Amino acid sequence: MKFELIAQDGKARGGRVETAHGSFDTPVFMPVGTQATVKAVTHEQLKKIGAQIILANAYHLALRPGEELIAEFGGLHRFMSWDRPILTDSGGYQVFSLAQTAKITDEGAAFQSHIDGSRVFITPERSVEIQEKLGADIIMAFDECVGFPCEKDRAAGAMRRSLAWAERCLKARTRKDRSLFAITQGGIHADLRKECTESLARMPFDGYALGGLSVGEEWEQTLEVLALSEGILPREKPRYLMGVGLPRDILDAVERGMDMFDCVLPTRNARNGEAFTRDGRIKIRNEKYRRDGAPLEEGCDCYACRNFSRAYLRHLFVADEILGLTLMTQHNLRFYMRLMEGIRAAIRAGRFAEFKASFLSGVGPV
Amino acid sequence: MKFELIAQDGKARGGRVETAHGSFDTPVFMPVGTQATVKAVTHEQLKKIGAQIILANAYHLALRPGEELIAEFGGLHRFMSWDRPILTDSGGYQVFSLAQTAKITDEGAAFQSHIDGSRVFITPERSVEIQEKLGADIIMAFDECVGFPCEKDRAAGAMRRSLAWAERCLKARTRKDRSLFAITQGGIHADLRKECTESLARMPFDGYALGGLSVGEEWEQTLEVLALSEGILPREKPRYLMGVGLPRDILDAVERGMDMFDCVLPTRNARNGEAFTRDGRIKIRNEKYRRDGAPLEEGCDCYACRNFSRAYLRHLFVADEILGLTLMTQHNLRFYMRLMEGIRAAIRAGRFAEFKASFLSGVGPV
Repeated sequence: MKFELIAQDGKARGGRVETAHGSFDTPVFMPVGTQATVKAVTHEQLKKIGAQIILANAYHLALRPGEELIAEFGGLHRFMSWDRPILTDSGGYQVFSLAQTAKITDEGAAFQSHIDGSRVFITPERSVEIQEKLGADIIMAFDECVGFPCEKDRAAGAMRRSLAWAERCLKARTRKDRSLFAITQGGIHADLRKECTESLARMPFDGYALGGLSVGEEWEQTLEVLALSEGILPREKPRYLMGVGLPRDILDAVERGMDMFDCVLPTRNARNGEAFTRDGRIKIRNEKYRRDGAPLEEGCDCYACRNFSRAYLRHLFVADEILGLTLMTQHNLRFYMRLMEGIRAAIRAGRFAEFKASFLSGVGPV
Repeated sequence: MKFELIAQDGKARGGRVETAHGSFDTPVFMPVGTQATVKAVTHEQLKKIGAQIILANAYHLALRPGEELIAEFGGLHRFMSWDRPILTDSGGYQVFSLAQTAKITDEGAAFQSHIDGSRVFITPERSVEIQEKLGADIIMAFDECVGFPCEKDRAAGAMRRSLAWAERCLKARTRKDRSLFAITQGGIHADLRKECTESLARMPFDGYALGGLSVGEEWEQTLEVLALSEGILPREKPRYLMGVGLPRDILDAVERGMDMFDCVLPTRNARNGEAFTRDGRIKIRNEKYRRDGAPLEEGCDCYACRNFSRAYLRHLFVADEILGLTLMTQHNLRFYMRLMEGIRAAIRAGRFAEFKASFLSGVGPV
């Protein structure tokens, strides 16, 4: 993997990452395709939306359909017919959020599958093996994630275990044509986060992710972690803020030197009938859109906005029609892609601060 | 509306219908878009599949979102962004199949909405008004449909009422730029069906549909009604067999001079995980497709078959992913479109009998 830093504007960075399946421009937003599909859209639609890289999940895919099966099909790219880069999350966060009766030891995480209750044991080595078999372009180290609030002792223990696991992931790696990213932990405790980030920064990872955030803490606390991390992380490696977030959060994080993002918000909110627009978020089932002939967002170039009115979208949601989910997902993802395109252009033009101020001024809560 | 008969092969007919929104070739299969959307596909996908005309439903759309609202948006074509022909069913069949506590008098049908229980009254005049407001290219007369088996007296009563209603529909019509089709009734009673068909054939309808079939009778009984009707219906008008059906049924009906078809089978079965193929129908959730790298159907040119394996489709269905519904629907509709393309070419080449025999030989139950 090659990361080229093309432009810098304050701490905001514009770059390009080259992978075994082509390149993507940063800052980048990665649509979430947990189960080897970005929910409710086809890969043709994803390409038209402008998605350069998508995220899939090692935990989900190992449980169903199994990484062996996907490997038989030549890996995730061929299985799901997506020829652009894929990043897989390691499963650490899912052990924390989804698995039942998880028991974590220094060796690994034992838990019951959320699908069928079967017993599963994932170690750092196993997680790397799964992700290499999936054939992801970027694989994530297996980490231990804790919630918020979290006792400092517990946070320290999970952080040190994650450090040890990160080293084991590096050793377990067999494919040099794929990248391996570390995940920093330590919650919002500055000294723990600093220790973790400094230790990981000394190891030969291809990129660094900030984990254990967006689990209930205040956004201001997250921002402090970002500022701290930015000062430690190597300038020549991409930085990935996991699970973030709202457009305004992404703007804050780009301003603090973050390069990569993923979040279920655009796709999940779409399926719940909520559209992102420059004028704020709108709930399309609302009666006030019943006779609204405008597109979801004036000026948007997505398939939904070019062809359909809010009234039609509302009808589809009220009538429980699948097309509503598909159209809304396309719009929300395109909204995020347009945001990232604007961010990248602004950084290259040296006017990120103006772009951010303009985006946030006079708009609703996005 | 103009109907041009281009070829005849035995009783099978090849033709072209011109409407206010362009033409379509017959025999034609119309994908069902009850609520102003063909379930799980976009209009771009529908066009790629080769759909020339789709069906929508006056009963459903009058209840939700209301024909007045759709008229405000310039009609159904603009509301749903479909610029090709649309046929709307009148609601007669839905009063029979969906409405609660329907009470039918000579004046019309009073019933409770299946959506919210509100009281609705539909007359022939009201049905024509709804369909004209929707702006359908082909509107259907409002009829009384009976089930099977049905006492002859009851069938005769419904048939005579449908005749009287057909005359009222003709009188109620105000838009001469749209077509009006009659619907014959009479169940499987030859004398009733004959009386109804002869009476309607004398009235100035633009086309004729066979109604009250596929409600539980044997296919052989339907075929007798087709043969009887074919001998009476005017040669220069299109003939529409409503709600049919399986590919083999369509072949039988084309052989007996039928020109137009609609059915929920390709779309509904798709969403239930069943694919139509030349080798029979397959249930994609079946364990035997778990490692099956073949497309749903070898040689199919649909988006699903060009890009994805049965194993991937199975994974999507097992994991409850919306993309599975979208891909399967595209395949099944494309299967039907390819069938109709084959039928039309065979009729024009004077080899329909061979085409039918070849299609049915050595294949599974389609």
